[in-house]
Amino acid sequence: MQQDEMFEQLINFWNNSMPFNQLLGLKITRFDAQKSEIRFAWDDKLIGNPMQKILHGGVTASALDLAGGTVVAANVINKLAEITPAITQQCLSKIGTIDLRTDYLRPGRGEEFIVTSHLIRNGSKVAVARMEMHNELGEHIAFGTGTYMVG
Amino acid sequence: MQQDEMFEQLINFWNNSMPFNQLLGLKITRFDAQKSEIRFAWDDKLIGNPMQKILHGGVTASALDLAGGTVVAANVINKLAEITPAITQQCLSKIGTIDLRTDYLRPGRGEEFIVTSHLIRNGSKVAVARMEMHNELGEHIAFGTGTYMVG
Amino acid sequence: MQQDEMFEQLINFWNNSMPFNQLLGLKITRFDAQKSEIRFAWDDKLIGNPMQKILHGGVTASALDLAGGTVVAANVINKLAEITPAITQQCLSKIGTIDLRTDYLRPGRGEEFIVTSHLIRNGSKVAVARMEMHNELGEHIAFGTGTYMVG
Amino acid sequence: MQQDEMFEQLINFWNNSMPFNQLLGLKITRFDAQKSEIRFAWDDKLIGNPMQKILHGGVTASALDLAGGTVVAANVINKLAEITPAITQQCLSKIGTIDLRTDYLRPGRGEEFIVTSHLIRNGSKVAVARMEMHNELGEHIAFGTGTYMVG
Repeated sequence: MQQDEMFEQLINFWNNSMPFNQLLGLKITRFDAQKSEIRFAWDDKLIGNPMQKILHGGVTASALDLAGGTVVAANVINKLAEITPAITQQCLSKIGTIDLRTDYLRPGRGEEFIVTSHLIRNGSKVAVARMEMHNELGEHIAFGTGTYMVG
Repeated sequence: MQQDEMFEQLINFWNNSMPFNQLLGLKITRFDAQKSEIRFAWDDKLIGNPMQKILHGGVTASALDLAGGTVVAANVINKLAEITPAITQQCLSKIGTIDLRTDYLRPGRGEEFIVTSHLIRNGSKVAVARMEMHNELGEHIAFGTGTYMVG
Repeated sequence: MQQDEMFEQLINFWNNSMPFNQLLGLKITRFDAQKSEIRFAWDDKLIGNPMQKILHGGVTASALDLAGGTVVAANVINKLAEITPAITQQCLSKIGTIDLRTDYLRPGRGEEFIVTSHLIRNGSKVAVARMEMHNELGEHIAFGTGTYMVG
Repeated sequence: MQQDEMFEQLINFWNNSMPFNQLLGLKITRFDAQKSEIRFAWDDKLIGNPMQKILHGGVTASALDLAGGTVVAANVINKLAEITPAITQQCLSKIGTIDLRTDYLRPGRGEEFIVTSHLIRNGSKVAVARMEMHNELGEHIAFGTGTYMVG
């Protein structure tokens, strides 16, 4: 199986079968070992404080965590000598977030939010990703750093 | 106005009028300057990975952030010389999460989740809280540390 | 070899042969799988800002990192079926700090500083420790959370 | 007084009168509101583990904290309407590290270490900086994120 084909399948699965991602409207829009991307649209149900009409901090953390996990997963698959659904699934089942730091920089306002992630540590047991969230105007909303178990 | 009365009003408002908290089922069950508490029940929509049936990491981060913000808010009100709805609202509007670290210790499994928080820094501009999340069996699921703007 | 004997040897080695710990005067005063402890005395060379006469933030981070690493090491040895110098050395060589969060709560003033650590995650690949630093008056100076590679 | 002149004075003061920076050999080599830089040379006294001959994690944290504090200080001065030694000193005395996350990516080996920092949050009360440490070969040794009190 080609890597591209597997990536395509995973995007479809993650976008359509992960309950919490669907609840929040998080969509993987780029699944790549160099840089991955998540997007989601403003929705009133994501509001933390109704008086200020800004995203709940947990929404931001959820999107950062998913973006970090996505780039980590792409790197794990990238290292496989052979790609089969069974091997891929086994490898992905070992991935888990160990810790996540979220830096909230500006109030979460906007119509669309874009989270990008790249890897800063690519080990056989532990990987570390850095993430950034902007809105559609290019304003930095948040940064993140996540440490993930990979093996 | 008595502090108890104000705390009661805030619990009601936060439990019933914060869209994202309602979406996740997060309930403030203790609002106190010494120790605050959030509880929420398992719900399939909170699942991150449908194969492992565990909470999405963002759910945990959301609950930790709310628990930290709650104990911070209780301390801010605790310092007020006079408690009126207008003064309280003005003070609370200044509270915001600066950064949040979440440590995921065990898979998020259980029927009910209990998050407690206490303050480790109680400044006039910045406060820091530490949080712990357990399930109904007393298993530690996660720890957190949050830095909050307060003034 | 008994575990006590090995712990004794490690305390001696770490207190007397680790250049940077010696430079700062950091001493392991308790080496234990439940709770470990580091102590160090005030020294003018540890000053960050000469006008405020407080510890450099890096001194605090150094002490927290050592305290976390010590309790992690005690747990790694604790799990060994057989304790020999060679096995112990091999296991300890795999320990490394992945990430460290330091929360500076109060200015670093005092005559002696005591850092305690305990484990919150005790995995076969990754361990997580939480640390606290007080001065001799019992004032909380700092908290920390460290994630360590162990296998 | 010109900003350049004040920056020059501060570099001299920080490089020559801060005891712990001198002990470690940390030198500010760029003091700038856009990007600041710290450099230091390998020295055996900075060794954490004598068997592996790598930097103590506390050395890395110290350098990251200084780099972050330097870019924060440059921004604080940058905002001043008038620069006098008294006003500058008063502003700088309010700067303090609230929390610092260090991500250790590779063993601290090299002849020279270069730490760069830039601001990701530039508030009137709180600033956040991100830092990177490389060795002279361009290898990434560590990343950091620091939250600083500024007002």
